[in-house]
Amino acid sequence: MLAVPAKIARCKEIVMCSPPDKNGNIAAEILYTASVCGVTTIFKVGGIQAIATMTFGTECIPKVYKIFGPGNQYVTLAKQHATKYGVAIDMPAGPSELLVLADESAEPEFIAADLLSQAEHGVDSQVVLVALSRNTLRQVEKQVSKQMESLPRREIVKKVMDHSKLIYTDSKVKAIDFVNDYAPEHLIIATKDNDIFVDRIENAGSVFLGVYTPESAGDYASGTNHTLPTNGFSKVFSGVNLDSFQKSITFQKISKEGLKNIGETIETMAESEGLQAHRNAVSIRLKKLTHGN
Amino acid sequence: MLAVPAKIARCKEIVMCSPPDKNGNIAAEILYTASVCGVTTIFKVGGIQAIATMTFGTECIPKVYKIFGPGNQYVTLAKQHATKYGVAIDMPAGPSELLVLADESAEPEFIAADLLSQAEHGVDSQVVLVALSRNTLRQVEKQVSKQMESLPRREIVKKVMDHSKLIYTDSKVKAIDFVNDYAPEHLIIATKDNDIFVDRIENAGSVFLGVYTPESAGDYASGTNHTLPTNGFSKVFSGVNLDSFQKSITFQKISKEGLKNIGETIETMAESEGLQAHRNAVSIRLKKLTHGN
Repeated sequence: MLAVPAKIARCKEIVMCSPPDKNGNIAAEILYTASVCGVTTIFKVGGIQAIATMTFGTECIPKVYKIFGPGNQYVTLAKQHATKYGVAIDMPAGPSELLVLADESAEPEFIAADLLSQAEHGVDSQVVLVALSRNTLRQVEKQVSKQMESLPRREIVKKVMDHSKLIYTDSKVKAIDFVNDYAPEHLIIATKDNDIFVDRIENAGSVFLGVYTPESAGDYASGTNHTLPTNGFSKVFSGVNLDSFQKSITFQKISKEGLKNIGETIETMAESEGLQAHRNAVSIRLKKLTHGN
Repeated sequence: MLAVPAKIARCKEIVMCSPPDKNGNIAAEILYTASVCGVTTIFKVGGIQAIATMTFGTECIPKVYKIFGPGNQYVTLAKQHATKYGVAIDMPAGPSELLVLADESAEPEFIAADLLSQAEHGVDSQVVLVALSRNTLRQVEKQVSKQMESLPRREIVKKVMDHSKLIYTDSKVKAIDFVNDYAPEHLIIATKDNDIFVDRIENAGSVFLGVYTPESAGDYASGTNHTLPTNGFSKVFSGVNLDSFQKSITFQKISKEGLKNIGETIETMAESEGLQAHRNAVSIRLKKLTHGN
């Protein structure tokens, strides 16, 4: 999710920090994936320690330009703090969220499975159902209770479901307003006519449409990036994408003719701001041009 | 520089905060420009007070999605702090900088005027000359002293020049390395063969090429944006541009056929991360598909 766009953007150095297990090892799956994706260097360090070392640099770990990747609340705060020392970050990432918008055409069994898959991330995950049908809400609630029992992480899931919301409204407008106000990281739309909602969704990180599009497809296989804005930040941030690894520089060259055309404007504006030296930088050139010609 | 791209990006609400003078007025030039550029609301408040009100909202000033615009060190810190409360910012903006890269073909009179126009911004401005010719360096130094005397803001300018650097090197490679390491906000290249440098500049906010391209043209008339990354941040940030006012949302819809194709991959990946509910969200659908067909 991070190394691939970095590689496509031709980042010369892709540093990965990952905490080792108690024997000092990193999981084979992670190492293999890192090598396939073009990570150039791996350091065995995690948490705020990793953020600190990449921010300031150490004897062996380089200071980097930008730090990407989600983490717990400590890591998130460390990343935000790092920006005061000249490092950029992808975005402030909080606990994961899913909002499902469903009407009576949705499959309660599937919706429940989607809500539970979000809930198993951790006790601070957030799960919301906005149902346009009372019956759907009830069916989903039943399915959640049923499916929960067989999950290895059911203790976590139960805690998440306790502070989660199942909301009923009969108004599509209210439902849309709620979604845009909540600005979920993940949004599943499971309704008869998804287009009505797609056209009006302004704030969401990644949207999943239709019966056969579980959010976990985005996590693992369908190709969209799952490093997404949480905590209402989808109002302003995009998920990580190629742009996150690129920047632009403006170049300009003004001809003699060009400076003659815009010179007076610059002089007037500089004058009105009381910046005489700004004005001079133009006047001195215009003088030369007039005398030269 | 901020309202125009915001308008092009179709931002519905463009709020401007500007500190009033002691009579409670905002300069006519500012009000006129704001109305031309599409600012929808103006509030008479400046400094960290403006940042605070736009971050949290008040009875009359709305909470905004993103705060743009440069400010002093207090405003910059307030903006960085605001990001912890759900507001995005354009970039951390510090004091303004200019680096001029010049060889013996440059006009010392023009270079000096450019350095001085940067220096008059404020005592914490930074000005650097990297000269590929000792003679050019000496000539620029002379011209700076000469031109400085007639400037209304010469007290500020003198202080800036005291902590500024005029650097000589005979190596183009060293000059380029220095520029990329310093990562200036503004870079003027005034050399015989600018292309050599243009091809190798990796870190700069905005670049000005050739004899008739003073930096003040970018401030006032040539069209490039002058809200630029300072303090080395041009290593990672672009200047403000249309992208700064836009975000992207990914939408995906998977067909039955599609889920059959990638379903097993998702199941395997989820399993290997120990996330059974993620797996279930797919398995439950695949089961239905198999039984359904």
